[in-house]
Amino acid sequence: MKLSQIADRIGCRLVGEDVEIYRVSGIEEAGPGDLTFVANKKYVRYIKTTKASAIILGEDMPPVSMPSLRTDDPYLAFAKALEVFFDPVRPEPGIHPTAIISEGTEIGPDVSIGAYAVIGKKCKIGARVTLYPHVVLYPEVCLGSDVIVHSHVVIREGCQIGNRVIIQNGAVIGSDGFGFAPIKDGGFYKIPQTGAVVIEDDVEIGANTTIDRAAVGATIIRRGAKLDNLVQIGHGSRVGENCVLAAQVGLAGSTRLGRGVWVGGQAGFAGHLEVGDKAVITAQSGTAHDVAPGAVISGSPAFENALWLRAVAVFPKLPDLVQRVRRLEKQILQPKGNDRSKKP
Amino acid sequence: MKLSQIADRIGCRLVGEDVEIYRVSGIEEAGPGDLTFVANKKYVRYIKTTKASAIILGEDMPPVSMPSLRTDDPYLAFAKALEVFFDPVRPEPGIHPTAIISEGTEIGPDVSIGAYAVIGKKCKIGARVTLYPHVVLYPEVCLGSDVIVHSHVVIREGCQIGNRVIIQNGAVIGSDGFGFAPIKDGGFYKIPQTGAVVIEDDVEIGANTTIDRAAVGATIIRRGAKLDNLVQIGHGSRVGENCVLAAQVGLAGSTRLGRGVWVGGQAGFAGHLEVGDKAVITAQSGTAHDVAPGAVISGSPAFENALWLRAVAVFPKLPDLVQRVRRLEKQILQPKGNDRSKKP
Amino acid sequence: MKLSQIADRIGCRLVGEDVEIYRVSGIEEAGPGDLTFVANKKYVRYIKTTKASAIILGEDMPPVSMPSLRTDDPYLAFAKALEVFFDPVRPEPGIHPTAIISEGTEIGPDVSIGAYAVIGKKCKIGARVTLYPHVVLYPEVCLGSDVIVHSHVVIREGCQIGNRVIIQNGAVIGSDGFGFAPIKDGGFYKIPQTGAVVIEDDVEIGANTTIDRAAVGATIIRRGAKLDNLVQIGHGSRVGENCVLAAQVGLAGSTRLGRGVWVGGQAGFAGHLEVGDKAVITAQSGTAHDVAPGAVISGSPAFENALWLRAVAVFPKLPDLVQRVRRLEKQILQPKGNDRSKKP
Repeated sequence: MKLSQIADRIGCRLVGEDVEIYRVSGIEEAGPGDLTFVANKKYVRYIKTTKASAIILGEDMPPVSMPSLRTDDPYLAFAKALEVFFDPVRPEPGIHPTAIISEGTEIGPDVSIGAYAVIGKKCKIGARVTLYPHVVLYPEVCLGSDVIVHSHVVIREGCQIGNRVIIQNGAVIGSDGFGFAPIKDGGFYKIPQTGAVVIEDDVEIGANTTIDRAAVGATIIRRGAKLDNLVQIGHGSRVGENCVLAAQVGLAGSTRLGRGVWVGGQAGFAGHLEVGDKAVITAQSGTAHDVAPGAVISGSPAFENALWLRAVAVFPKLPDLVQRVRRLEKQILQPKGNDRSKKP
Repeated sequence: MKLSQIADRIGCRLVGEDVEIYRVSGIEEAGPGDLTFVANKKYVRYIKTTKASAIILGEDMPPVSMPSLRTDDPYLAFAKALEVFFDPVRPEPGIHPTAIISEGTEIGPDVSIGAYAVIGKKCKIGARVTLYPHVVLYPEVCLGSDVIVHSHVVIREGCQIGNRVIIQNGAVIGSDGFGFAPIKDGGFYKIPQTGAVVIEDDVEIGANTTIDRAAVGATIIRRGAKLDNLVQIGHGSRVGENCVLAAQVGLAGSTRLGRGVWVGGQAGFAGHLEVGDKAVITAQSGTAHDVAPGAVISGSPAFENALWLRAVAVFPKLPDLVQRVRRLEKQILQPKGNDRSKKP
Repeated sequence: MKLSQIADRIGCRLVGEDVEIYRVSGIEEAGPGDLTFVANKKYVRYIKTTKASAIILGEDMPPVSMPSLRTDDPYLAFAKALEVFFDPVRPEPGIHPTAIISEGTEIGPDVSIGAYAVIGKKCKIGARVTLYPHVVLYPEVCLGSDVIVHSHVVIREGCQIGNRVIIQNGAVIGSDGFGFAPIKDGGFYKIPQTGAVVIEDDVEIGANTTIDRAAVGATIIRRGAKLDNLVQIGHGSRVGENCVLAAQVGLAGSTRLGRGVWVGGQAGFAGHLEVGDKAVITAQSGTAHDVAPGAVISGSPAFENALWLRAVAVFPKLPDLVQRVRRLEKQILQPKGNDRSKKP
């Protein structure tokens, strides 16, 4: 395809020769015929050496020797360029004869339900839903339209999934929350987890992520939120609109994230706390208290990121700091007699 | 149902009007007709504003204006109140025709075995066991009575599960331990994992949790222990009676937790170590050494919690501390001549 | 079996009586008739008290009173001794009648394909491959020979798996990478994940581990690498030859680990970084920058391990250090008049 055609389709400005493009590649791997991109400063250094035939670049980047597609948002343009060439594997249309559809379930038009899928009683499946092989829906699950559920996902009883939700393989939606009342012999009484999970429109859930049902009420993932793989959402938690949770993040019960919160990988939340809109919680941090809107916090326990950056810069120097304090003490605190006796 | 009837069934003392109750709700969401509860101090502030019709409260709480159910253990009473109104989804009784039961397997009375479950040779399934659809048991697995195994769980060859055990979706019991002997070319020789996993009575295992089989002997989860989601139990580890492991905890191989140990989310254990009875390991901590019974430890690497609390309080002040030491050094350590020359 | 026969089969030198051995056991559990071993210094203390009949020991260990098998590599000898007595459960040969093999798929000789396995179109399955029940392969997956894939594993479209690879239960290979371009309303545009996952020969993948497909190109796990359970490999990452990743490790996107890198449990990598050959990243550390070959790093954020060990030794003494600085300040910084007035 001509670079100019791609420019039209993805909304970029062509600078340079209108070369023929055959695919989209990463800047290090790209070869002749490839369109590549730079959206992360770490990769600017590869612009001079890449063998790509053309490159997607921000309007603010300096001129380059190869043909370029200029845009204010090179990452978005890259996404759209990928779509131009991408021919995704499509699941088989229709309902596979081995799929088990229990009584009382309603199924919309143009669905794809794969082999050995098991759908419990009284479920509702919207239009154009794709259930890959081996998906299991417990009874009374409700899926909106255009939902994609990958193989080995389980959605437990009574959970509600919005439109255009994508659930990657092995995720578990609606497992029992972790609730036990201690009893006198040292054991525990299981608290019935009577609530469910509600996932709103346009959410994506990562592979092997687990989202527990609430003891009462609902665990809620709001519109547009994106959860990576192996994330844990405790019972009764709420993840706000357009939140982004990287892999292996954990929310204990009743954690509430506002809108547009970004959480780095392996970060944890102690539960029963609120995180304000657009807060950023960096990777591996541990949050046990409420977080103000717009705050950027780091560390375990977490505090303000700017201060944390300065504190962790000191941390490797602690042994040296101790030496310095010891030296001061020698000078100042020892008895005058001793002090003199050591001087030459 | 009358509040007095609930009081009778859950063993509480009714204070105030005998109102009609229709369900149990969280204190923030509760409306007219709802019974709510406070068991966590963070929610006391909602007592004045809740729209609930009645509330479960500790005997030690001050009087309230609405009808209350008083008890020494409001969390346990809440659990029992939930049961009064909860009508859980029940799996289909009997053995689904698509379930595969291999030869030599013995199955007790009144079981429910779901669609596409696969049960290997020579398994033993106790009375009233529920295997949800898509459960896989490898050969020679032994399940006690009243066990509940959710969809997409796998129990590997030779593992033994006690009575009343609940295994949430996607958990893997008995995967190969992570054992490799380094060989001379830089590669590894796989150590056969010849042991199994033993899970005693009344244990609950969270969704997508993994428990590895031992190289020799057994990985053991003792009676009453509760493991949350995405927990990793390395080969040969032992989790003591009534331990509580929050989500994403990791035990490397041959970690031994005593009785009643509490482990916060995302905490890790280095393996080949012992944790004494009733120790508490707080969230995200990292433990590489034995832990004394009753100890409370925090941090990575972990040490005594009371000291850790004081140390992490200092941590954000490190940049300031460095400044203070520098100031002292300027006063003390520099040659007198310099010192004077800088003074006005 | 006679101890001398075992010595011959596993390549050890027999010292002491040629006793009869019935099994291999851990040193604490071993009883009469058992062969045990010591390969970890923590267990040397049990040599005097073990009830084993014989022991595998390093050539460098002092003499013992019981019969011993001496070798330069006791851990490897232990692995081989286990094999002598181990009779692993073998899956059923052949293709189970309920397995679904889609059109265009080629299957090598002597495979075992379990019940309810689902294999997409145009897959290639090598000789002697074992797919346990409920394995799902999306279309165009290519498996080498002698691969073992355990129940509930999913391998997504177009992924390529080498020879002798072992994939433990519930692992997800080729789920969509976590890529979203922010758009103006606060939402996100999903970046098509057009690449795949390539796993080379002799790799082992742990239970419920997730390996994301690349946006472009491939996520690659090189020959001989071993990944434990619940590990997350982000899109476009590369794990080098013979790397060892302990449980719950997380690699964000485009992380590149060199050859023979060892990563401790729960460690995380920020992505878009390179780790040099034979680097060691200890448990729970967090790495946001490139790591030099052979470096040993620790902490979050991670730095040189030797320095880290000294810094964490100071950390619990921080409250004390603050007191010491305060004391110095009292001596030095306060006005002389005040200073005198406080002295007796």
